[in-house]
Amino acid sequence: MERLTAVGPTAYERHRSLLHDVVRAMAAGECRLPFTAATGQDAADAGMRSTRTAAKVFASLLGRPFDLDQQGELGRVATEFSPYGIAMDIRYPHCDPAALVAAASRATAGWRAAGPAERAGLAVEILRRLNTRSHELALAVHHTTGQPPGAAFRAAGPRAQDRALEAVAQAFAESERVPADLRWESVRGRPLEMRGTCTLVPRGVSLLVGCADYPLWNGYPGLFASLVTGNPVIVAPHPRAVLPLAITVRVARQVLAEAGHSPDIVTLAVAPPEERLHRRLATDPAVRIIDFTGSARFADWLEQYARQAVVFAQRTGPNTVVIDSTHDYRSLVRGLASSLCRCNGRVRTTPQNLLAPAAGIATDEGPKSLRDLGADLGEAVDRLLGHPARVARLVGAIADDTVAAEVERAARYGTVVHAARALRHPDHPHADVRSPLLVRLQARDERVYGREWPGPVAFLVGTDSTAHSLEVFRRTVGRHGALYAAVHSTDPLVLAVAESAALDAGAHLVQNLADDLPADPSSGGSDLPAAGAHFVTGRFRVVRSRRHVAAAA
Amino acid sequence: MERLTAVGPTAYERHRSLLHDVVRAMAAGECRLPFTAATGQDAADAGMRSTRTAAKVFASLLGRPFDLDQQGELGRVATEFSPYGIAMDIRYPHCDPAALVAAASRATAGWRAAGPAERAGLAVEILRRLNTRSHELALAVHHTTGQPPGAAFRAAGPRAQDRALEAVAQAFAESERVPADLRWESVRGRPLEMRGTCTLVPRGVSLLVGCADYPLWNGYPGLFASLVTGNPVIVAPHPRAVLPLAITVRVARQVLAEAGHSPDIVTLAVAPPEERLHRRLATDPAVRIIDFTGSARFADWLEQYARQAVVFAQRTGPNTVVIDSTHDYRSLVRGLASSLCRCNGRVRTTPQNLLAPAAGIATDEGPKSLRDLGADLGEAVDRLLGHPARVARLVGAIADDTVAAEVERAARYGTVVHAARALRHPDHPHADVRSPLLVRLQARDERVYGREWPGPVAFLVGTDSTAHSLEVFRRTVGRHGALYAAVHSTDPLVLAVAESAALDAGAHLVQNLADDLPADPSSGGSDLPAAGAHFVTGRFRVVRSRRHVAAAA
Repeated sequence: MERLTAVGPTAYERHRSLLHDVVRAMAAGECRLPFTAATGQDAADAGMRSTRTAAKVFASLLGRPFDLDQQGELGRVATEFSPYGIAMDIRYPHCDPAALVAAASRATAGWRAAGPAERAGLAVEILRRLNTRSHELALAVHHTTGQPPGAAFRAAGPRAQDRALEAVAQAFAESERVPADLRWESVRGRPLEMRGTCTLVPRGVSLLVGCADYPLWNGYPGLFASLVTGNPVIVAPHPRAVLPLAITVRVARQVLAEAGHSPDIVTLAVAPPEERLHRRLATDPAVRIIDFTGSARFADWLEQYARQAVVFAQRTGPNTVVIDSTHDYRSLVRGLASSLCRCNGRVRTTPQNLLAPAAGIATDEGPKSLRDLGADLGEAVDRLLGHPARVARLVGAIADDTVAAEVERAARYGTVVHAARALRHPDHPHADVRSPLLVRLQARDERVYGREWPGPVAFLVGTDSTAHSLEVFRRTVGRHGALYAAVHSTDPLVLAVAESAALDAGAHLVQNLADDLPADPSSGGSDLPAAGAHFVTGRFRVVRSRRHVAAAA
Repeated sequence: MERLTAVGPTAYERHRSLLHDVVRAMAAGECRLPFTAATGQDAADAGMRSTRTAAKVFASLLGRPFDLDQQGELGRVATEFSPYGIAMDIRYPHCDPAALVAAASRATAGWRAAGPAERAGLAVEILRRLNTRSHELALAVHHTTGQPPGAAFRAAGPRAQDRALEAVAQAFAESERVPADLRWESVRGRPLEMRGTCTLVPRGVSLLVGCADYPLWNGYPGLFASLVTGNPVIVAPHPRAVLPLAITVRVARQVLAEAGHSPDIVTLAVAPPEERLHRRLATDPAVRIIDFTGSARFADWLEQYARQAVVFAQRTGPNTVVIDSTHDYRSLVRGLASSLCRCNGRVRTTPQNLLAPAAGIATDEGPKSLRDLGADLGEAVDRLLGHPARVARLVGAIADDTVAAEVERAARYGTVVHAARALRHPDHPHADVRSPLLVRLQARDERVYGREWPGPVAFLVGTDSTAHSLEVFRRTVGRHGALYAAVHSTDPLVLAVAESAALDAGAHLVQNLADDLPADPSSGGSDLPAAGAHFVTGRFRVVRSRRHVAAAA
């Protein structure tokens, strides 16, 4: 009981004002980023460890068993390789999936009974502790996904925690919105003395299928939305990017146990790839919620075979930029070049298709042909990557060895405007680091650019007109999905039509922001997945119970 | 423009205070029933036609074409037969399903642009006009479903409108909750001048698969939730119960057209049964939302094959009453007997399984054995049905000719406590009207009582104890679903355990209310389907768009 009073009921009290502040801000359309906003001394005061300490902690994890004290442990499994060449060999518990599901099921009743306030308080407490480990989590993301250190910090640190906090606040607000007590108005011929209760019933065991490129950024919203709405979560990382989620799970289990809850409310599932663990867990009858960000192919598979569960699938697809005209050509080129350099893996947050009229675009520096635009983009990329220190800062290492073949294949479909050259990483000479490939295509090459390509592959597509660009955008993104879209134009009419096309395609849109990608952790916002309130409310149902007042007395 | 100003933008203004009042009440857990509460002169003042006028209007519909002026009309089709023997022969437009989907798709953009306030205002206006036709709608339900007049009025009139109003208010509140404008807090290194918009994007064409027993009561929540969240709706009634929904569609189209909107936002789809219209529409790629109340079998089919759509399926199942003990045995028996008499069709709102310890129950009249309880229930049923006038008021005519065989089959599985006898309806001598069948079974006969039976079939199941009853309840309802459950006990512990079992099974629960069935239109409440907020928020997504403030100027 000592431990219970130390953290448990007080977690909500302790984080209450932060939580309510975020809820209020979200309702008003204001995006709060409290973890991100804490700078320098603030962050140190809040307990964030220095990079030096984090590096030591990270090093201490390598080549060792990673203990979690979970049910049904069968042995140990190591599945990660750093694209920067350091030896990982972290040996995670390999647990029987059925035992993990059983443990989560057993934890369900207690977690449901805790109620939304306590769950939200504990979720914030988990985030607060993760925040103190931001540099350690960033190293884990850096060495598993290949993202450069700065990008990894954004994808794993305060920004990812702010994104999670948004999910916590939304889940808490939606849960609190369910009225606890029901009263009936008098209706002729009916007595008044009826009362009722409304109870939020969590859907059941939740499964997070981790992705290889943004394990925390893409994983946290579903993980925390499920937790706060009362569902235990089995976290099943991508075999190539286990560590960031494993640290997250360990922190969550500690906080839960300290508060007197079953740590099995959050568990980690890792297995050798031949076990097809994700598919086994996804089709377990007790798994009722699944979160996944990635290929339309696996999302389709989940929706087809995991029918006992509600599936929140964020499909990645050809992120598209429609270029019509600009007041600031130089910034446009610099921004796009920098975006092109930022991709490293399979899950693309950077643009793939740049659609512009073949006849060229109007700019503040006069008309620019498609060839000019391509050449300027190529030069801007070379300028950005001209210095090894900038390469190390900007470009990620390619973690997936199938990407190389795809890059070569893409180059054969059109005119190479900028080639994917091997770059030398100043600190990790063996890392596979490449400059982005930019290939010029024609609008009719849709079978090439219409699908999502991995890694540093982008296409500059010449269309008949901006109207044609928008038509292509509407069709390709409408069919395959995309994390976001962007438009550059000085013409309000074009912006309006682009907005309507994005609405039809269901993609987030940015306007005249060259280097701000909504799906990317470096973005100015930290937008939750596009599902809206459904992303939270789909995780529970509401059951009403009714009685006469007299009978209840 | 004349017409537009007459109804259009003012519909919201006109109904604004009602709408906001209902939204406020729901948030506070208060159930308002404004249509139901309007009585006598109030109802007349609100324009509700007299029963005499309604009877004339109803008679004028019989044996004629029912015109709707829809797209793609191929011919006419009549599919209804009154179980009371009057000739219906109402000839509905038989439209090409593809033409209906195309018309709905074309209407989507305009309806989306109307915005939530206008949509909610028009929805209330549709309900207000339906309210004036309550007696006519009740006759339509009476003659298609076989429900007796009073029950038909409850299922088709003010109560159904109040239930729809709850869906309208919830959809309006959830839509309004999406903030229109977004602002970002300043974050170090990032400028402040970013603004954004948040747009609610309706999911797409919505399909209402009507049911044969409660076409309006079960149909309205989905219909109105879809409309207010911006989705056009194709209403596809059960072939045996078209008229109530056809009148509804006609009223909706009139209101929409008067307000300057496309009437194709709401259309009626009817076809000869061999066309398998529901399945064709449900698998049309443009259909993105489906509402259905009925058998788990068709609900499973929808979830398996209509994968392009979000499916809101309310599965009917063995509604269960757990009987442990009572302070008022007489009321308990009378209430249960009256509930048993009230069912007539396939979709069961009345109890099927009465679970009680084989050793008997404790009551204010001393201990009662299971045999006593059965005998008392049988006698109470006979008393209720002792007079032909009460038969006409209480018992519905059986509209489905497969029910008779099922009733006979059920009687062979155990001891018949009360037989299903043919009753004479005073006004309709040829109507198939029967007293309820009550069969005593043992707990181990789960393969019999575990599934849903149609019509007037109920089982009195003897269990080892109340704990055993609750276990059986948890298992059968957890597996097959149910519209609701009830418990009778004087022991707070039993009530608490029953509540927890109902939560696990996801069924609405009533406590010690013998004749108040949450799923039934005669109930004290007008509970929406159990999906909670998800029932509304699953019908749209939220798309965000972002720009620099300078760029937008």
